[in-house]
Amino acid sequence: MDDLSRPTRPSVSTLTEPLVENLIARAPQLRLAVTRSAAGARIVDAGITARGGIEAGRLIAEICLGGLGAVDIVPAARFKRWGTLIGVRTADPVTACLASQYAGWSLAEGEFFALGSGPGRALHAKEELFGELGYRDQASSAVLVLEVDRFPPEVLVERIAAGCGVAPDRLTLILTPTMSLAGTVQVVARVLEVALHKAHALHFPLERIVDGLASAPLPPPAPDFITAMGRTNDASLYGGDVHLFVEGPEEEAAALAAGLPSSTSRDYGRAFGEIFTAYNGDFYAMDPMLFSPARVTVTALSTGRSFTHGAFDEAVIDRSFA
Amino acid sequence: MDDLSRPTRPSVSTLTEPLVENLIARAPQLRLAVTRSAAGARIVDAGITARGGIEAGRLIAEICLGGLGAVDIVPAARFKRWGTLIGVRTADPVTACLASQYAGWSLAEGEFFALGSGPGRALHAKEELFGELGYRDQASSAVLVLEVDRFPPEVLVERIAAGCGVAPDRLTLILTPTMSLAGTVQVVARVLEVALHKAHALHFPLERIVDGLASAPLPPPAPDFITAMGRTNDASLYGGDVHLFVEGPEEEAAALAAGLPSSTSRDYGRAFGEIFTAYNGDFYAMDPMLFSPARVTVTALSTGRSFTHGAFDEAVIDRSFA
Amino acid sequence: MDDLSRPTRPSVSTLTEPLVENLIARAPQLRLAVTRSAAGARIVDAGITARGGIEAGRLIAEICLGGLGAVDIVPAARFKRWGTLIGVRTADPVTACLASQYAGWSLAEGEFFALGSGPGRALHAKEELFGELGYRDQASSAVLVLEVDRFPPEVLVERIAAGCGVAPDRLTLILTPTMSLAGTVQVVARVLEVALHKAHALHFPLERIVDGLASAPLPPPAPDFITAMGRTNDASLYGGDVHLFVEGPEEEAAALAAGLPSSTSRDYGRAFGEIFTAYNGDFYAMDPMLFSPARVTVTALSTGRSFTHGAFDEAVIDRSFA
Repeated sequence: MDDLSRPTRPSVSTLTEPLVENLIARAPQLRLAVTRSAAGARIVDAGITARGGIEAGRLIAEICLGGLGAVDIVPAARFKRWGTLIGVRTADPVTACLASQYAGWSLAEGEFFALGSGPGRALHAKEELFGELGYRDQASSAVLVLEVDRFPPEVLVERIAAGCGVAPDRLTLILTPTMSLAGTVQVVARVLEVALHKAHALHFPLERIVDGLASAPLPPPAPDFITAMGRTNDASLYGGDVHLFVEGPEEEAAALAAGLPSSTSRDYGRAFGEIFTAYNGDFYAMDPMLFSPARVTVTALSTGRSFTHGAFDEAVIDRSFA
Repeated sequence: MDDLSRPTRPSVSTLTEPLVENLIARAPQLRLAVTRSAAGARIVDAGITARGGIEAGRLIAEICLGGLGAVDIVPAARFKRWGTLIGVRTADPVTACLASQYAGWSLAEGEFFALGSGPGRALHAKEELFGELGYRDQASSAVLVLEVDRFPPEVLVERIAAGCGVAPDRLTLILTPTMSLAGTVQVVARVLEVALHKAHALHFPLERIVDGLASAPLPPPAPDFITAMGRTNDASLYGGDVHLFVEGPEEEAAALAAGLPSSTSRDYGRAFGEIFTAYNGDFYAMDPMLFSPARVTVTALSTGRSFTHGAFDEAVIDRSFA
Repeated sequence: MDDLSRPTRPSVSTLTEPLVENLIARAPQLRLAVTRSAAGARIVDAGITARGGIEAGRLIAEICLGGLGAVDIVPAARFKRWGTLIGVRTADPVTACLASQYAGWSLAEGEFFALGSGPGRALHAKEELFGELGYRDQASSAVLVLEVDRFPPEVLVERIAAGCGVAPDRLTLILTPTMSLAGTVQVVARVLEVALHKAHALHFPLERIVDGLASAPLPPPAPDFITAMGRTNDASLYGGDVHLFVEGPEEEAAALAAGLPSSTSRDYGRAFGEIFTAYNGDFYAMDPMLFSPARVTVTALSTGRSFTHGAFDEAVIDRSFA
């Protein structure tokens, strides 16, 4: 037999290019403002001066997944009052969520600070994580999503382009404030990614994670950053559901399922905003193991057994979202 | 910065053109009959002599939304016996629902009467509503949906084309009887539009409505017009859920949420068919404020608070749909 | 009027061609291995040496439906522990499910045995069923799905091509082991087809079935064939929901609804694996009438009345899936 398949891993930036062009082409009806920076980079404003919206957030979330996943807006009965779930699925959760979607590229310039997420990270590939992932992308264009409420300084824009190895006019930056509708959707769509990130923190061998499905309720946005951040986190912590399919020994799948849910954290039980306040607003004092879905099922493909831990907490969701 | 975005509002007819061409291309498998009128207008029969179906209704509903929204068919557990929801969402609810989807163009010729809905309305733009919307479309083709069970007279077809400012052979009319599968879906997909229409009747400033999500159960079609009309209305009145995201003062968002649900109507509580009979079949004697979703959540983006009013009534749904 | 519609039934192989090309183009990220057999047929490995995944299974299921249906992965609250439904719908259930999706082409060569499903069956059209369906396809390419865990012998590949009336290099075979993620999805996506097949066994006139919606929970795959087969069957038998819309007399619709659910079978009540064991692994000793959805609603379009029979059994689902 003659092998027609390509053994190389997919290029998340190349796969995402048509998704970015589609977003730009639909900018007027998605209420996105698209501008060019001085050096020619495209800046997509999804909620600073432009309104943006839920569908824009959905498309941006799919861009964050590097063209390897789908994000759906689904009416569902999980919670009485909050009738919309964000569904996320990807056939390659490690590449989609960790090599692309995770907000891992620290970008600072003067007083401006942002964590870059999306396919451009894998072009830069300087984060320690990329060594472990064994993945580095190459492409002729780059896109990065910044969860910020102001425009990045031009010198940073040029630095990002250089870091991705593309000319500035081949770079697209998408700006999604946490407080915006688009920002809300694209953060909640990280419910699968938080599970993968915690699996990594728990030292589960990432290459064993074969497939993943997740969902979390859509919270209403809040104009206050702390409240907005609280709600998007609570959507996962108290309302998120993740199903991972993994290879390897069953007992390790069982241990992963037991270790993943937010309920394993010492900070579990209160809404994110309450915990944040209790730590006097010191984000880094919070238990990093808190950031995970409410409920997790792990299926051991080697034996076919599934392990479910954690539970939804509707009372916290109601308190947080209202 | 150099602004790449277009400040003009989108042309619903232009956005919809590829959706109409897709519908026509898939006509055989969607069981639609496509003919040309004497003057050359395309007539799509979605349930008169042709069978049509649920997927045809879904695509027609997306055409009605002017290419600005998505309509999904979703298995869900809201009601025990009726396991399918129609989900509707649009990033521009006012343009999609009021400037396009609303059945507001009164079309009469001899004994033929229909209310035209869809993008063609905004080309005509003679309805009073368009003055308030400040929107008027221009395009080289037009499409209008008529909820009728017979073909329109040729003179009316030509009048519609003229009203839209297009040659007859650039006009497509889609016919969806209330009693057909396609008609059922496209009417239930108006669950968001009825909320917007009532918000307008309640004098809520429309430009403040930023985003919208909605869903309602899919009723079985009925061969009798009154029953069919009753079920498609009851799907919204007793089973519909709408979430609006609005700008402006929180108290006005709260008032909107309190005023919107069907339960605020004097006629609320009985199935549509029973009310209609009680008024001796006089549609215009019914409370116009009845036409609204069972449950409404309004989020005030200015403060992040949400207000939920109304509730589903499964007993009425069961009585109506069975 | 001049009829623009084509009265002929759609060609499932022609409609499916772009879906197959899309699957092949996305093979690397879907983790499919694509090879050419000696005679030039494309072989898509979706779970033998390649990993495959849920999205691959979804796309393969849509290929099985002959381009006439949609398969969705939906988060839903039907079952507490198993939060994902596979949704299936088609505007032409008889052609999609019986002329294409049904695994009806018996393929044997030496010790290799498989039941072929998908559009290629209608090119071959030698099964008795095709006489009753009055449908025979013609196309310049063919695709067939085999639920197997090894590669077919080359002589069989050539025989399939000849049977479909295409050159071997115009044939694509997709291999989905029952134990794989892709195989699990594509089998569960047969929940509508099992209803249609049983309707046929009950002698309901197929041409009266106008539209269909269905859903069933996604089970975790199992590495053991019997367990895997058991779970994919239990998903329909104890978790599947089907809604058919039919023409003809109401009492015949009522009889169909009463006859369709799995609960009408003498073998109903135990998980598939338990029944299989009780019959000493003799598949053909099992009641063929067992293979049907847990719950069925049939709407008689002639009167608008709906008939619902059967129920979900969460306890059996839990026992089978865990």
